[in-house]
Amino acid sequence: MELSEILERVAAGEISAAGAERLLSEDGMMAEVADACLDLDRARRCGLPEVIFGEGKTTEQVVNIAGAMVDAGQPLFISRVNREQAGALRESQPDAIHHKAARIVTVGRNYTGEPVGGIAVVSAGTSDLPVAEEAAVTAEWMGAKVDRVVDVGVAGLHRLLRKLDTLRCARVLIVVAGMEGALPSVVGGLLPQPIIAVPTSVGYGTNLEGVTTLLAMMTSCAAGISVVNIDNGFGAGVAAASINRLGG
Amino acid sequence: MELSEILERVAAGEISAAGAERLLSEDGMMAEVADACLDLDRARRCGLPEVIFGEGKTTEQVVNIAGAMVDAGQPLFISRVNREQAGALRESQPDAIHHKAARIVTVGRNYTGEPVGGIAVVSAGTSDLPVAEEAAVTAEWMGAKVDRVVDVGVAGLHRLLRKLDTLRCARVLIVVAGMEGALPSVVGGLLPQPIIAVPTSVGYGTNLEGVTTLLAMMTSCAAGISVVNIDNGFGAGVAAASINRLGG
Amino acid sequence: MELSEILERVAAGEISAAGAERLLSEDGMMAEVADACLDLDRARRCGLPEVIFGEGKTTEQVVNIAGAMVDAGQPLFISRVNREQAGALRESQPDAIHHKAARIVTVGRNYTGEPVGGIAVVSAGTSDLPVAEEAAVTAEWMGAKVDRVVDVGVAGLHRLLRKLDTLRCARVLIVVAGMEGALPSVVGGLLPQPIIAVPTSVGYGTNLEGVTTLLAMMTSCAAGISVVNIDNGFGAGVAAASINRLGG
Amino acid sequence: MELSEILERVAAGEISAAGAERLLSEDGMMAEVADACLDLDRARRCGLPEVIFGEGKTTEQVVNIAGAMVDAGQPLFISRVNREQAGALRESQPDAIHHKAARIVTVGRNYTGEPVGGIAVVSAGTSDLPVAEEAAVTAEWMGAKVDRVVDVGVAGLHRLLRKLDTLRCARVLIVVAGMEGALPSVVGGLLPQPIIAVPTSVGYGTNLEGVTTLLAMMTSCAAGISVVNIDNGFGAGVAAASINRLGG
Amino acid sequence: MELSEILERVAAGEISAAGAERLLSEDGMMAEVADACLDLDRARRCGLPEVIFGEGKTTEQVVNIAGAMVDAGQPLFISRVNREQAGALRESQPDAIHHKAARIVTVGRNYTGEPVGGIAVVSAGTSDLPVAEEAAVTAEWMGAKVDRVVDVGVAGLHRLLRKLDTLRCARVLIVVAGMEGALPSVVGGLLPQPIIAVPTSVGYGTNLEGVTTLLAMMTSCAAGISVVNIDNGFGAGVAAASINRLGG
Amino acid sequence: MELSEILERVAAGEISAAGAERLLSEDGMMAEVADACLDLDRARRCGLPEVIFGEGKTTEQVVNIAGAMVDAGQPLFISRVNREQAGALRESQPDAIHHKAARIVTVGRNYTGEPVGGIAVVSAGTSDLPVAEEAAVTAEWMGAKVDRVVDVGVAGLHRLLRKLDTLRCARVLIVVAGMEGALPSVVGGLLPQPIIAVPTSVGYGTNLEGVTTLLAMMTSCAAGISVVNIDNGFGAGVAAASINRLGG
Amino acid sequence: MELSEILERVAAGEISAAGAERLLSEDGMMAEVADACLDLDRARRCGLPEVIFGEGKTTEQVVNIAGAMVDAGQPLFISRVNREQAGALRESQPDAIHHKAARIVTVGRNYTGEPVGGIAVVSAGTSDLPVAEEAAVTAEWMGAKVDRVVDVGVAGLHRLLRKLDTLRCARVLIVVAGMEGALPSVVGGLLPQPIIAVPTSVGYGTNLEGVTTLLAMMTSCAAGISVVNIDNGFGAGVAAASINRLGG
Amino acid sequence: MELSEILERVAAGEISAAGAERLLSEDGMMAEVADACLDLDRARRCGLPEVIFGEGKTTEQVVNIAGAMVDAGQPLFISRVNREQAGALRESQPDAIHHKAARIVTVGRNYTGEPVGGIAVVSAGTSDLPVAEEAAVTAEWMGAKVDRVVDVGVAGLHRLLRKLDTLRCARVLIVVAGMEGALPSVVGGLLPQPIIAVPTSVGYGTNLEGVTTLLAMMTSCAAGISVVNIDNGFGAGVAAASINRLGG
Repeated sequence: MELSEILERVAAGEISAAGAERLLSEDGMMAEVADACLDLDRARRCGLPEVIFGEGKTTEQVVNIAGAMVDAGQPLFISRVNREQAGALRESQPDAIHHKAARIVTVGRNYTGEPVGGIAVVSAGTSDLPVAEEAAVTAEWMGAKVDRVVDVGVAGLHRLLRKLDTLRCARVLIVVAGMEGALPSVVGGLLPQPIIAVPTSVGYGTNLEGVTTLLAMMTSCAAGISVVNIDNGFGAGVAAASINRLGG
Repeated sequence: MELSEILERVAAGEISAAGAERLLSEDGMMAEVADACLDLDRARRCGLPEVIFGEGKTTEQVVNIAGAMVDAGQPLFISRVNREQAGALRESQPDAIHHKAARIVTVGRNYTGEPVGGIAVVSAGTSDLPVAEEAAVTAEWMGAKVDRVVDVGVAGLHRLLRKLDTLRCARVLIVVAGMEGALPSVVGGLLPQPIIAVPTSVGYGTNLEGVTTLLAMMTSCAAGISVVNIDNGFGAGVAAASINRLGG
Repeated sequence: MELSEILERVAAGEISAAGAERLLSEDGMMAEVADACLDLDRARRCGLPEVIFGEGKTTEQVVNIAGAMVDAGQPLFISRVNREQAGALRESQPDAIHHKAARIVTVGRNYTGEPVGGIAVVSAGTSDLPVAEEAAVTAEWMGAKVDRVVDVGVAGLHRLLRKLDTLRCARVLIVVAGMEGALPSVVGGLLPQPIIAVPTSVGYGTNLEGVTTLLAMMTSCAAGISVVNIDNGFGAGVAAASINRLGG
Repeated sequence: MELSEILERVAAGEISAAGAERLLSEDGMMAEVADACLDLDRARRCGLPEVIFGEGKTTEQVVNIAGAMVDAGQPLFISRVNREQAGALRESQPDAIHHKAARIVTVGRNYTGEPVGGIAVVSAGTSDLPVAEEAAVTAEWMGAKVDRVVDVGVAGLHRLLRKLDTLRCARVLIVVAGMEGALPSVVGGLLPQPIIAVPTSVGYGTNLEGVTTLLAMMTSCAAGISVVNIDNGFGAGVAAASINRLGG
Repeated sequence: MELSEILERVAAGEISAAGAERLLSEDGMMAEVADACLDLDRARRCGLPEVIFGEGKTTEQVVNIAGAMVDAGQPLFISRVNREQAGALRESQPDAIHHKAARIVTVGRNYTGEPVGGIAVVSAGTSDLPVAEEAAVTAEWMGAKVDRVVDVGVAGLHRLLRKLDTLRCARVLIVVAGMEGALPSVVGGLLPQPIIAVPTSVGYGTNLEGVTTLLAMMTSCAAGISVVNIDNGFGAGVAAASINRLGG
Repeated sequence: MELSEILERVAAGEISAAGAERLLSEDGMMAEVADACLDLDRARRCGLPEVIFGEGKTTEQVVNIAGAMVDAGQPLFISRVNREQAGALRESQPDAIHHKAARIVTVGRNYTGEPVGGIAVVSAGTSDLPVAEEAAVTAEWMGAKVDRVVDVGVAGLHRLLRKLDTLRCARVLIVVAGMEGALPSVVGGLLPQPIIAVPTSVGYGTNLEGVTTLLAMMTSCAAGISVVNIDNGFGAGVAAASINRLGG
Repeated sequence: MELSEILERVAAGEISAAGAERLLSEDGMMAEVADACLDLDRARRCGLPEVIFGEGKTTEQVVNIAGAMVDAGQPLFISRVNREQAGALRESQPDAIHHKAARIVTVGRNYTGEPVGGIAVVSAGTSDLPVAEEAAVTAEWMGAKVDRVVDVGVAGLHRLLRKLDTLRCARVLIVVAGMEGALPSVVGGLLPQPIIAVPTSVGYGTNLEGVTTLLAMMTSCAAGISVVNIDNGFGAGVAAASINRLGG
Repeated sequence: MELSEILERVAAGEISAAGAERLLSEDGMMAEVADACLDLDRARRCGLPEVIFGEGKTTEQVVNIAGAMVDAGQPLFISRVNREQAGALRESQPDAIHHKAARIVTVGRNYTGEPVGGIAVVSAGTSDLPVAEEAAVTAEWMGAKVDRVVDVGVAGLHRLLRKLDTLRCARVLIVVAGMEGALPSVVGGLLPQPIIAVPTSVGYGTNLEGVTTLLAMMTSCAAGISVVNIDNGFGAGVAAASINRLGG
């Protein structure tokens, strides 16, 4: 229930004010665990349950949060897990799947019915693969069919042109590139679909750990490209999956 | 026709090599005018015809390009027009419409049938309105129904919460904000739709002419937000309209 | 009333759900005017009514918003007004006061009873005065007694040391400086009060329009200094006035 | 005694010039130890005794300085201690307390009588906790009562709204957040208290190790927020504690 | 003569030490005029005579320097001239040619015999033309044949592909682009010639007045591209012309 | 064959459309291996075969890609190899040569006939040597004769002046420098050849890991210098070698 | 008298405490005028009287401050004066001298006896002259003999080498340059004197309004160069004059 | 001999051209060792022999270069040595002295006669000591008497004021500070000597590894301060020592 619905039902005498408050409490929509306060209502509200960013958390924190999520009947998604975290998660959660290339651990999935779609994840070079894979696994976990088109950087346009038919079939494109970040502009000049561009920190010197790539994608001469944070395959996957759902 | 189609039909003897080349030439898919080389095939290929960025062009260049576009039977869209350009365009093109608040001139529209959708354009403050309006007019020109929700910045959450029902009905949200750029994060925590965030250059000092707003939106704690360039209402409108079409 | 109070009273049958919604509506806590949506509940909620940032608004927008504020019985505060705006405001609002050095127009004041406190506004150089005055006028409008201590930059410590007794009497200090921004560190090493530091864009070259000053104040060796945006005398005035009130 | 007091008393013949100089010397207001020159008069002058920043110092330096402080009868506060430093301090100073989550070691406390206040320390995510805890422990050591409100980031407004009553009771708020740093703006739009915002280096890519968070907080649309350095929980604790004292 | 040659000839008694010094003096290789010290030996030494950057100089300074250059029998090249400067130059130097689009005034030319080469100057958009023209006029003045290929940005690859034959005939390519600066990468992936990339300040927001374009070109995925300063068509023209000469 | 040639021959009935597609496929111009899609047509098209950037790739990826390259009859060039990668490559490819100082492994060479040229690689300090050597080995592998002139920084002009005769003989100069990056300006003022400047990350503090060096080289007062990315000896080598070839 | 001297003399009964305070007061060491608090003791304490930065001050403020300085018997030095300010100053102060190229107005001079020294002010290009002249006039006003060596940028080393004898005679060198800022490194490699480097904002694009020049000078490979702010000829003049005095 | 002297003597027949060339060669003024080309004439020309920057060099390189320097009869100075380098140097050069706190190894000294002067090295905090010590040892090695004044940061002005007499006796001041870098401004407002300011990388967050400190020192309100690179104690020592010599 939304705040306004709670309001209506309290007015109608169907639930008490105290009951209303409880609806917003631990038993209802949140779980407190360790140092975290899990938002169990998030999936309904935002289409995405609470997900966990593994980096910078201790293995113990990760395992505890994962346990609380699973106990609360929520699907589990932990990104940027290191090996130690992944091992501990697989031990504590027998159903856990470790998507190694994407550095993700999942239990269950965030959709019902069959996957729909599709999304094409296009990446420029070999070093962009972990980010591309993070985007792909995220979108799949949210119910999208995903095609992966790898190593089609702009310095070899032939490679990209060969794959145009695959790209043309997608509803939405995720384009992952480092260095000068030119790939989204080129793709955007060839195809009409919505494009989510993901800058990666691949490069050195003036790449400035991906900042140049991000800024360049932002100032693309091809209209209608939108951009997520550097190396943020997860964010791109979520954005693309929520767009993909519009296609029914 | 795509390159690959041309290839097939040449192989089938249906068109000659010279004819194929002509298909890529001035008479076929391009028009050369003044210092510009107009891409007349763009609408079919990318879903968006060639559009003109008025800023930094002379009035004469703008009028000439507009004439060539209209002569080629293409809908016309010129963004960031100043008063002089708008006046000259309305004189030379009787059907031109000047969307003043959005600083846009159009002739015709880039869709057939009825508008569909909808898109909600949400803006944080009064000073963000020109950018929000640019996004709205762009999306409408591409066939989207657009709702405008203005002046709902995060410093007064009540204003935003009142409008949640309007926002809940949209297929895709454009969120326009300057200063600290917190609005997309808050909206993204309340609603499940795809969000295109537009940072504006509204603010001073550490706002750094919108760069801080952009970086903050990029590093949003709400997943699935994608971002366009500073003040780029046009790009957001295109992205949202192409997403909106997926909804049928 | 807060959201939770509304909830309670609806549950108690004292007000209907529809009435509750109205409480959040135009008639109750907001006024829509021109392109703005004024938050009339702000003073109660945040201790500060809606205030208007004049820069970047047209004279007409400013006059309209001012009229709506005054009609709603709210005190008026418009910062960064230019001459044209100030003139038009004084014409349309006979009670308007134009604080020239501070670039502020006010009608009424945001407190009841007598001014309390005090705040000392310390500024380093002659060029820092407009920002210092903006801070002082803001704090006075919110009910603080303010002492102004000007031109006491660190290159002449004697000037500062002469004024220590004045500073020692204040409850909270606003320290305004440009260039290397050393003044807050020196003051913070001599006195125990809370300090709000305001970097100004006074300087050239490596001053980087105040960014260096801001960063230097942030990394001050004196603990307990907090900082507001470049040239943000208004924000400093608000912060200091709300601290000053704690002193009763 | 201040410089001016010393001046008066020398003039009155109560103390000799040599005695005056001694008042400024090692025996009087300073202690020289190892490579440091401890300012033993600081607590009286600034309300805060000399505190030690552990990072970048050797364990031996830290232990020696701690010894000199305790020998001089001063309360001890060492921030950013690592495990080795903490162990050595607890060995050399039996009364030392190691606040692990806050990375602080203290001996004694910097106030007399009972704690007063209070301060609410609000933090956005799990990863912001060490900085929040540093702020809380600092403020407590200076005599403030502190409430901790954790994991209430803007992507789940429900969590924050549940805690409004706790926040409403505080005299001053410390708001700790990383990423886009939107939490202070949202809190500042709901509550009237002074707010000290602490940006953290939590985030990646465009977060730029906290610089984006800091700049965004600086350019907040909510007036009256002041900001301290990135990850500077200590500075926020000192600022809030000195404000808290004004409340009596 | 080089320093070492002068050394040899002095040793051989062919010229005296005084004569050697004179060779380095005003009469020999330099002319002092107004506030400038013209390097009359530059053409022999570096392949390029002293050229004048008009921007930031008074019309009087420009006219005086031009007079001194012509009096010394040197070809004249003044870049970034404004209208007033150009008018005055044409008045004082009857042989002066004003290349308007390139903002250049020349008298004579910096080569003997016939133009050789060629260089292709490729530009992405209409707004990049002044910089492209500056490059082209510079190279022509240094004896290169130049082809101009305009408006072939990466968002419409067809336009570029149509021109590949022209580009294939060039010895060296100058590629001028603003915004994301992707054009050099794409050209570099299609063709084997040396490429001089010129970033322009065309764009807004994250373009950062050309800095993003420059950094992106620097971190191009296509090897062997080298880059000159933002809007530095002159530098690109000189570099390309000196490369072009190697072709004989 | 180029796209346009394929088009012609398909039209002439010499090859079928399917055959044309195959020409762009794995058997023809590409090889797919592991996560990479090798562009086997690159040498013909761009004068440079696909080369591999070792940094950030696993030893296994590097070995697999190398194997595929050699199997396809292509010369092999892998830059930025670490010791482990170099060892594994030499084991798997008996003909591999490890250029230690340049951190490069090669098999075969990218030219036929005799080396031509030459190129002079000039470096400012001892710490610039790895980058200079990377440039030199790259250019040699592409068929250039290379002279190395080391340790001739501008703080000791004598050292540079001694080497002017060597530099005068080169067709093109690569100038490698860190710190303030002044060497290219000085060389450019003495000699007429094309100069490729390579900034290195040598320096500290305001050197900003080479960004200052790069920006300084960009804004050089000597015309006609073009610049590659920080530490990008490879790119400079490619650019210089392709220029050097023009000399026949 | 210094603080400590005052202390001594008060202790000795020579002056009263009240008299001591007066020594620090308006009548003694300061004059309050308009919004400024002039430090009349500065010349004795720092070797330099209070000087005025004209930029950003109104003509009226400048004239008032100048009057107060002259009335107090202090020499007058106002830098960065515009034409209007200069005119008004010459009207109100008949002895005022307007150094046009340096943008300085002086009355009197800040030394006794004869000028000593000398200082050589070396500048790279014509556009650097205003800054160089500001440095020269400043140093002369403080009693230094100054030689000006202009237009000796590193792109023409001959010009610099011709002037080495002049430079060798100086006690201290001021080196003024824009663009890549290489001149101090080259001079520092040839001569043993102390060097004050002054970066100017001459240049465009990556020059970043002098920031690149400044950073490059900072990271110079020649030891012992120190740097002042961008375009800060005044600061360089003061620094050099105070060094020059050491030579007796 | 200078270039010009060589010229004269060759002209006079005193030395042959070949002899002249030899004067510039290895036997005369340079020694080639390993990858370095040592400038043995540097001490005479610049007042400072070639010194070695240890960081980034292998122990073997450092030992070889040291050997060559000592063999050539030059005093040895190696900065930023690590423990391994220091150990190896002391083994290979029995006369080597390791200045641990300054991270410097020396053999011999760069002056004759007695030390003169003096220089005062003032540092703000304990963490600034290594840089301050590097400055002090450098200046001593060049013949200066040095006073060290430590831990006198601006947050405790008493500590600084106590030391004013020591500072007043110095000819030149080196002021070392991190964080906000305010110390040079304060010292410059109290004393007339030339000041060399050294920013250190001490601090965190907005300190930006010393860049903020450097920029703040640059934009100091106290005139006549000049600044060296971040942590560049060596450069400050050289600059101060060369100034100190002027005092005779």
